Amino acid sequence: MCELLAMSANVPVDACFHLTGLFKRGGTTGPHKDGWGISFYEGRACHVFKDTLPSVSSAMARFVETHPIHSETILAHIRLANRGRVHLENTHPFVRELWGRHWTFMHNGQLKGERQLALNGPFLPVGNTDSEYAFCWLMEQIAARFPKPPRQSKTLWRFISEQLHILSSFGVFNAILCDSTYLYVNCSTKLSYCVRQSPFEEIHLVDSDLSLDLSTHLTADAKAVILATVPLTRNECWTALKKGEQLVMEKGEIVARFEAE
Amino acid sequence: MCELLAMSANVPVDACFHLTGLFKRGGTTGPHKDGWGISFYEGRACHVFKDTLPSVSSAMARFVETHPIHSETILAHIRLANRGRVHLENTHPFVRELWGRHWTFMHNGQLKGERQLALNGPFLPVGNTDSEYAFCWLMEQIAARFPKPPRQSKTLWRFISEQLHILSSFGVFNAILCDSTYLYVNCSTKLSYCVRQSPFEEIHLVDSDLSLDLSTHLTADAKAVILATVPLTRNECWTALKKGEQLVMEKGEIVARFEAE
Repeated sequence: MCELLAMSANVPVDACFHLTGLFKRGGTTGPHKDGWGISFYEGRACHVFKDTLPSVSSAMARFVETHPIHSETILAHIRLANRGRVHLENTHPFVRELWGRHWTFMHNGQLKGERQLALNGPFLPVGNTDSEYAFCWLMEQIAARFPKPPRQSKTLWRFISEQLHILSSFGVFNAILCDSTYLYVNCSTKLSYCVRQSPFEEIHLVDSDLSLDLSTHLTADAKAVILATVPLTRNECWTALKKGEQLVMEKGEIVARFEAE
Repeated sequence: MCELLAMSANVPVDACFHLTGLFKRGGTTGPHKDGWGISFYEGRACHVFKDTLPSVSSAMARFVETHPIHSETILAHIRLANRGRVHLENTHPFVRELWGRHWTFMHNGQLKGERQLALNGPFLPVGNTDSEYAFCWLMEQIAARFPKPPRQSKTLWRFISEQLHILSSFGVFNAILCDSTYLYVNCSTKLSYCVRQSPFEEIHLVDSDLSLDLSTHLTADAKAVILATVPLTRNECWTALKKGEQLVMEKGEIVARFEAE
């Protein structure tokens, strides 16, 4: 299995503090030692760092954790491999381009029989995880249904929600997709979120004896939503998503919510 | 304009020494201060680092230059912007997936009127450089002509050669494309290469007072071809490509050569 972390904010924020917590779970406080990856969005493009080393012993993880990269949308993953060897090609998040935007995807869980969903192109997996296969199928459905972005964002949200439900029927599918504007979240078994807004307080990591005073870190008008497989901080209010619950997030706010029918 | 560096080898090599030379040209010994990028292949997947800071002052460049990442195929670019603002989305190398492989592309030069070549999808630019536009057009031609990889590699080489010639007719087009197995090189005005094989000697950078004893760095059976806009070492035999000349490289060898008709 794996662990996911995602952040959506209305101002560019850095993820250093949270990465310090998450990366500890890649070999020290958690078993997710089969690589890690992170994407930082800047407009329609994203910057991706990946390594197949455990995050606790990766020099690149130390670099990312200590050099703030500010972004409104951040997705991070630490891997405990089930399907697909430990290799760059199987390391999340996966990226594809559609409509002149980078889309990224990451997954926690395991699917079975997902190859019943045929891939007809133009998106094909580079590696051999169930996760990248599911992502390619999802991108194919979106591209086939909407050759161009639909006028109404809600039309897209609804369509993606339906496709995520279909994928959920193949197994455990805690997954986060980003189209550069919206984060789409699907909870199959385990995902929690935490909403932050002023007044900000000091927060403490679960996995490390570190704290951060958010009031010195964020301006009063800042808003953020943090998502994680297992809560990363010990003194904030984390809400567990229900099985089948889905969120759409934009600029630090939950803009839509769907539930399995 | 920009500068390009590419390496093809039959064993995984690191590019640290060469990057030290190239990165100096991003603000110290050269004016290419509008960002830099590098891709390292591992099988069909590639790892990409990009930064919009000048390579001489980028902490990420220092990381990449001092932490050896071993790869048989490496592409690096330093940018002096002409078309397209200084932004992640306009930073080379650009990446797309086709046939379950990552393709990367980088360009030195400037095109004019290339938008006469229509883009019909599925590859669209994320940024607004002539370079990424040309790359998307090229990928569209390859995907349309070969829904699957052709049986004969030479069929692909010939086809890509023809498309690169078409793009060259729109301006200065020194460009390097990689399909994860082959490097395709198009010289429009300025590109040199250097072939390395045993016995290896000590090499000296042009841009820095640094040398490297290749005999302690490479095994006797290693072979490599290095490509650069301007030679990076001062005591090796660099061969300038002619206008219109094209190379295909694989595992440290030039496997095909085409010339403009």
